[in-house]
Amino acid sequence: MTPTIATIMNHRSVRHFTEQAITAANLEQILNCALAASTSSFIQCSSIIRVSSSDSREKLAQFAGGQPYVASAAEFLVFCADFNRHRQIHPDAQLGFTEQTLIGAVDTALMGQNALLAAESLGLGGVFIGGIRNNPQQVSELLDLPQHVLPLFGLCIGYPAREPEQKPRLPLNIVLHQDKYQALDFEEVAAYDQHILEYYAARSSNSKQVTWSQQITATLSKESRPFMKEFLQRQGFSEK
Amino acid sequence: MTPTIATIMNHRSVRHFTEQAITAANLEQILNCALAASTSSFIQCSSIIRVSSSDSREKLAQFAGGQPYVASAAEFLVFCADFNRHRQIHPDAQLGFTEQTLIGAVDTALMGQNALLAAESLGLGGVFIGGIRNNPQQVSELLDLPQHVLPLFGLCIGYPAREPEQKPRLPLNIVLHQDKYQALDFEEVAAYDQHILEYYAARSSNSKQVTWSQQITATLSKESRPFMKEFLQRQGFSEK
Repeated sequence: MTPTIATIMNHRSVRHFTEQAITAANLEQILNCALAASTSSFIQCSSIIRVSSSDSREKLAQFAGGQPYVASAAEFLVFCADFNRHRQIHPDAQLGFTEQTLIGAVDTALMGQNALLAAESLGLGGVFIGGIRNNPQQVSELLDLPQHVLPLFGLCIGYPAREPEQKPRLPLNIVLHQDKYQALDFEEVAAYDQHILEYYAARSSNSKQVTWSQQITATLSKESRPFMKEFLQRQGFSEK
Repeated sequence: MTPTIATIMNHRSVRHFTEQAITAANLEQILNCALAASTSSFIQCSSIIRVSSSDSREKLAQFAGGQPYVASAAEFLVFCADFNRHRQIHPDAQLGFTEQTLIGAVDTALMGQNALLAAESLGLGGVFIGGIRNNPQQVSELLDLPQHVLPLFGLCIGYPAREPEQKPRLPLNIVLHQDKYQALDFEEVAAYDQHILEYYAARSSNSKQVTWSQQITATLSKESRPFMKEFLQRQGFSEK
């Protein structure tokens, strides 16, 4: 196992941080790792907002649905798809295509994962905050995001105050398909559900009694941020 | 610099591969690294199609706009957002939300980046293939993708036959914003354009004379896969 694979396989989302700051040199390495990611057709359509203002951090923690670590982490970065940069260079740029939303989301996530892994390799921990999409309009106003900039997710990073357990993922047999898409093997799902039930029961904090199937059934019985389509279009994305 | 950061910073897209196969053990490590990525609210909405059939690989190379390395790479993986798994478990799942397209694209890209970095750390090289979105309907039919499965990108991996130069990225000053979104510094862009002009002129293969601003101006003067909105909706994504 290479050190990089060890870093990747050791991932767990960290939500409790010590007060130790991240040095400027380490932060710069993390950010440069973000930049090193692949970019579709060299379009480079991502921006990162580093939020240091404690007032803004408190507001973002609330906008994200009450996630206090957004305020308390040493660093909080907001990753955005950004075609406004291109519009400034080329005012007649053809924007608003659904495809550009996909490019923006994929490329920006590649950057985010590089940043998180770089941080983890430095002994830091972190967690992605999709919760900023609970209130994308308020987040955009707070960060002065213009049209054609889409806040996708935040990333908290800092020194871990606790080492959480690793949450077991769906087994490879379920996620991987050979040549053609294969129907779900319900026996595999049942075995995984049992595994998750045992994981939650044994977990050192926030133990509960639920399977993965029950969790996703509850999640998908509700609407999923139904305002997002309108927000995207208002922001100049996925209009066509 | 940690070994993980060294791997990340050493990235270059590799499109020429030797005929050496990837061992089953290495491939399994790469795929397990993909699984280890973060997942929004534990939704786990990604599938990976490993395409080994040489007939399918040839077709995918054509669907991707004529990219021969899709056929010649040791491995080709198609990364998909997948809510069909959830629908099989929970037939009444509320699907088709634009937000779910974002979750799918972000989470699947996190997995893809883990897979690429794991491969790179093993001495392999790779390149993401957004070009499969040139013909998403044909790709979906070839791979038997049902509704609620969205092919996002491919990943070629194999042993590099050449070591391409690294393509310089936009400088951190342009991509990073402090607390609020900042307007573009056109002097920084001009300096970067000059840097890219020199990079392309000096490049050992496929040298050309173009700046980044000229490239993105040409790209964004055209429509960007204008069929994507309709395809997504047909596939059960971003309907609402």
